[in-house]
Amino acid sequence: SMVPHLITALNGPTNELEQRILDMTPAIERWFRLEWMEHTPPFYSSVDVRNAGFKLAPVDTNLYPGGWNNLTPEMLPLAVQAAMAAIEKICPEARNLLVIPENHTRNTFYLSNVLQLKRIFHQAGLNVRFGSLSLDITEPTTLTLPTGEQITLEPLVRTDRRLGLKNFDPCTILLNNDLSAGTPGMLEDLNEQYLLPPLHAGWSVRRKSHHFQAYEEVSKRFGKLLGVDPWLINPMFAKCGEVNLAEGADMDCLTSNVDALLTKIRRKYKEYGINEKPFVIVKADNGTYGMGIMTVRDVKDLDELNRKTKNKMSTTKDGQSLSEVIIQEGVQTHERINDAVAEPVVYMMDRYVVGGFYRVHADRGIDENLNAPGSSFVPLAFADSGRLPQPGVPPGASGPNRFYMYGVIGRLAMLAASYELEATDPDAEVYD
Amino acid sequence: SMVPHLITALNGPTNELEQRILDMTPAIERWFRLEWMEHTPPFYSSVDVRNAGFKLAPVDTNLYPGGWNNLTPEMLPLAVQAAMAAIEKICPEARNLLVIPENHTRNTFYLSNVLQLKRIFHQAGLNVRFGSLSLDITEPTTLTLPTGEQITLEPLVRTDRRLGLKNFDPCTILLNNDLSAGTPGMLEDLNEQYLLPPLHAGWSVRRKSHHFQAYEEVSKRFGKLLGVDPWLINPMFAKCGEVNLAEGADMDCLTSNVDALLTKIRRKYKEYGINEKPFVIVKADNGTYGMGIMTVRDVKDLDELNRKTKNKMSTTKDGQSLSEVIIQEGVQTHERINDAVAEPVVYMMDRYVVGGFYRVHADRGIDENLNAPGSSFVPLAFADSGRLPQPGVPPGASGPNRFYMYGVIGRLAMLAASYELEATDPDAEVYD
Repeated sequence: SMVPHLITALNGPTNELEQRILDMTPAIERWFRLEWMEHTPPFYSSVDVRNAGFKLAPVDTNLYPGGWNNLTPEMLPLAVQAAMAAIEKICPEARNLLVIPENHTRNTFYLSNVLQLKRIFHQAGLNVRFGSLSLDITEPTTLTLPTGEQITLEPLVRTDRRLGLKNFDPCTILLNNDLSAGTPGMLEDLNEQYLLPPLHAGWSVRRKSHHFQAYEEVSKRFGKLLGVDPWLINPMFAKCGEVNLAEGADMDCLTSNVDALLTKIRRKYKEYGINEKPFVIVKADNGTYGMGIMTVRDVKDLDELNRKTKNKMSTTKDGQSLSEVIIQEGVQTHERINDAVAEPVVYMMDRYVVGGFYRVHADRGIDENLNAPGSSFVPLAFADSGRLPQPGVPPGASGPNRFYMYGVIGRLAMLAASYELEATDPDAEVYD
Repeated sequence: SMVPHLITALNGPTNELEQRILDMTPAIERWFRLEWMEHTPPFYSSVDVRNAGFKLAPVDTNLYPGGWNNLTPEMLPLAVQAAMAAIEKICPEARNLLVIPENHTRNTFYLSNVLQLKRIFHQAGLNVRFGSLSLDITEPTTLTLPTGEQITLEPLVRTDRRLGLKNFDPCTILLNNDLSAGTPGMLEDLNEQYLLPPLHAGWSVRRKSHHFQAYEEVSKRFGKLLGVDPWLINPMFAKCGEVNLAEGADMDCLTSNVDALLTKIRRKYKEYGINEKPFVIVKADNGTYGMGIMTVRDVKDLDELNRKTKNKMSTTKDGQSLSEVIIQEGVQTHERINDAVAEPVVYMMDRYVVGGFYRVHADRGIDENLNAPGSSFVPLAFADSGRLPQPGVPPGASGPNRFYMYGVIGRLAMLAASYELEATDPDAEVYD
């Protein structure tokens, strides 16, 4: 079987959840259908899921997903179909799509990702070109990937009212850049064009705590639908508004919250007879790319943090200083491929799950972040993902059934992102 | 390569068309997107396509497609995603879908087809049950297929305003029964429920000549978009209103139209330097299932028709007598799998191509109908169909490129069906 080996027993809570999700498929799909009548799905997203055997939860919801190149060719038609649906709703007459990638143009894996996006949207009926926010791109610049494929990055051209490229006026501008470094003025006040995701989804504005607040609400409602304890799919969390780790001060909030959360987890473990050591993850509330992430198994760990670790933690991507932190219930990943720890990543476009893969990391523990910068990981496409769930197969034994469950959890996180973006929309009209 | 061997040269018109379609993909997809803004796609459909090497054309557009069981498991997620999109537009709050299959309950291939539909719609979030129009089904009847799978057919329950089953009130009723025998009163005046396809799509009302009239219009507009002669994708046709073949009378209309159409085809062949013998297909304008179909290579063939053939032709499915006939330009199928003649069949749900297969018939000629009753055929799933087109591969050498072209032709026929159903809608409001 291509389902990664689960070290937990087959009758563990995650397997019961898998069975329950499979049994209730029509009700679940209808529930999502009704939710999407009221809420707008993010244009695209990816969700990191951790399966502890006794618990299954999203730990990161990316609204500027990279890694599309890790999806297998077999998955792409689903992405194209979803892209067609997405475009049709936003800008049905569109001919052109402008994609704004991240600035790291030397990373050929990343460039393969944006080329994959081009392939998907081309097939969905759009002329796709790339506009760079990088100051280095002052003229059209063609880069050649190791595969021989080429990609051309062009300088953005901003007029008073519109953003485009030379001789290229897009209806929709798709960001594949998470705006960690802040919102470029060039992207502001584009009232005539669709900018997706909206600027307040960028990491200089977005907060993980807002997301997991919304996810908590989603998990409660979904738990009620399924008749299961929402904790089985929800990672508990707390947050501290201002922590200056580099200075070593302001640790009180962190210490007390870590302590309280560990206690809450311990209580839940006891309730379910789980014989594991609880841990929490401390990370930047606006952090990205797995930077500044720390596993804390005991409140004493915080005191033992040496200056070096704190310095390392205190800086996130693009040199933003870490001040707000989220303390999240740690969810082990008990999926393994051969001997390596694996976590599933689910890819979505519009409201649809379009694929996924396992992030595999041979050198990391089950309670550590696998999306570590500079470290290698092996993407493993969901086997048999191009198949429907198979009723009647024992939980944990069917790839398609497991992936369906991951797809449900991925979509719950995507729904939470939708709630989150509505709640944080600066342009939202408020009625009271 | 899994692309069936084409006996035509690689630089034939169909290959030029394939290249042109591939080069113009974004424009083509946008064109379809705009068409679907104005026109409603049929809920589902399948289209038989014939590829003569010098010409590629749809020859039959089925609005009650069977054969879903011939799609491979890899294709089903696309069908599910399309079904979600279709249901969301029609009846987003729906819990239940009632499917009305054909009456031939002894045909286990057919029953596998309806079980496949159940699988698709279940996964899209609907409870699916089957209601039979057959008078033999007076109580819930469970049949077991050779695979061990079971299917339960239930008697329909009609109230004054609604149609359903005992304890099952559907929002949408999906016909997988082409109503050749006429429109059952039970299906009329269901103003509170969605009945799909609409009753005027049934073969007791529908006419092939209406469809191909609409297709001619579609092919002209598409030909203009691509800058190609619409004849390359359009089978010419003529019709006779009343022909009593059994009586041997009323043959004048048929004879003169066959003669005129053969002359038109000959002229086109000459224009393109095609060294083939033209032929026409004479078939029931409201016929189904490949019954009553005759290949005519010369107008003299009509005189030589013996009484037996005429009798055979004069009856279509469900014993309807053949009176109106359509005379259609014959399109050879030059696709072969091993030595057998093959024709592609494209499956669509809502506006999306969700799969296809080759209908393969070892005992039939290239100018004969392959969908012959009682004869065996081998469905061969499109190889690599779960892949995007591959730009840069020579025409005729790439499975995905070829299937993309077939998917475009299939969608043109689906669009024609949409035009056709609009034009023949008895409830359409007419403004003048």
